Amino acid sequence: MIKRSQVRVAQLRTAELFRQAGIVLTPEEQTGIEVASFGLNDLETQGLELITYINNDRYCAKELVLFPGQTCPEHLHPPVGSDPGKTETFRCRWGKVYLYVEGKAAPNIKATVPAASKDYYTVMHEIELSPGQQYTIEPGTLHWFQAGEEGAIVSEFSSTSRDEFDIFTDPNVERMPVIIED
Amino acid sequence: MIKRSQVRVAQLRTAELFRQAGIVLTPEEQTGIEVASFGLNDLETQGLELITYINNDRYCAKELVLFPGQTCPEHLHPPVGSDPGKTETFRCRWGKVYLYVEGKAAPNIKATVPAASKDYYTVMHEIELSPGQQYTIEPGTLHWFQAGEEGAIVSEFSSTSRDEFDIFTDPNVERMPVIIED
Repeated sequence: MIKRSQVRVAQLRTAELFRQAGIVLTPEEQTGIEVASFGLNDLETQGLELITYINNDRYCAKELVLFPGQTCPEHLHPPVGSDPGKTETFRCRWGKVYLYVEGKAAPNIKATVPAASKDYYTVMHEIELSPGQQYTIEPGTLHWFQAGEEGAIVSEFSSTSRDEFDIFTDPNVERMPVIIED
Repeated sequence: MIKRSQVRVAQLRTAELFRQAGIVLTPEEQTGIEVASFGLNDLETQGLELITYINNDRYCAKELVLFPGQTCPEHLHPPVGSDPGKTETFRCRWGKVYLYVEGKAAPNIKATVPAASKDYYTVMHEIELSPGQQYTIEPGTLHWFQAGEEGAIVSEFSSTSRDEFDIFTDPNVERMPVIIED
């Protein structure tokens, strides 16, 4: 669960990062910024903020925001019916993002694995993305990512997004936790 | 046809607009900016500059640039094999774009139809996009668009792009004209 007041503060911080990066949202988009705490009760450490520009039955485009050091937990996009699973391209727009996927592990990764959930971070092949750099993740590939010390804004271009089917390594993750009014 | 020197100048102008808008390209992307003159020999009036970030068999993402008053000629995206044709979402990032699609014509459109090709602009349903605003064009729909007085940068999120199959209203359009070395 997450408090409504935490969601509002995270939305305002996200809107400010978009402003700094020169990315314009409509007022409706600003109030609709999605704050994903993954039910882990520590948004600063494990969380993600996002806007979905379009998600139809052919393609999807989102803008992802990570606060400084914030981590999106390890997960993969499985096949869903006739869909082989989501393919996604991450393009760093602002700040820095460390992306980890399956493959040869880096000897010393640059990100800090969230201590409370360290057993649930298993892939350590490191891709460092600065503004203008991008990487495409194939369906069914485990991945996680963390912002550098300034935070990050990442454009996600993908096939259709079906977030509710994502498979997280950490069994404690809830993709859509309850928001508590306070 | 278009001269190599014209292509180079247009690439530099495009790179400068990206810089103004805070959109970062890699050096390789900057030298690979596509300059589409459509074989009409008047790039300032009818033309388009673009970067393709990703185009795979599921989705495509581009950044489109229009110089002040520059127009992308009227065209549609037809079915190709099992593909029903490209669906595309235009999101204005910077400047202003006037988009015209099939539907009820505006009584007085805000764009200026290019005089030399006026017979080949037939759809006049007007959509005005400022930064943060977007519009999705369904397959097989005639459309054209023109930048406002400052120019425009437009993110295009779409299904797979197969530009070589686009159908232009103007029979004089060549999508891939010869570049003359000078």
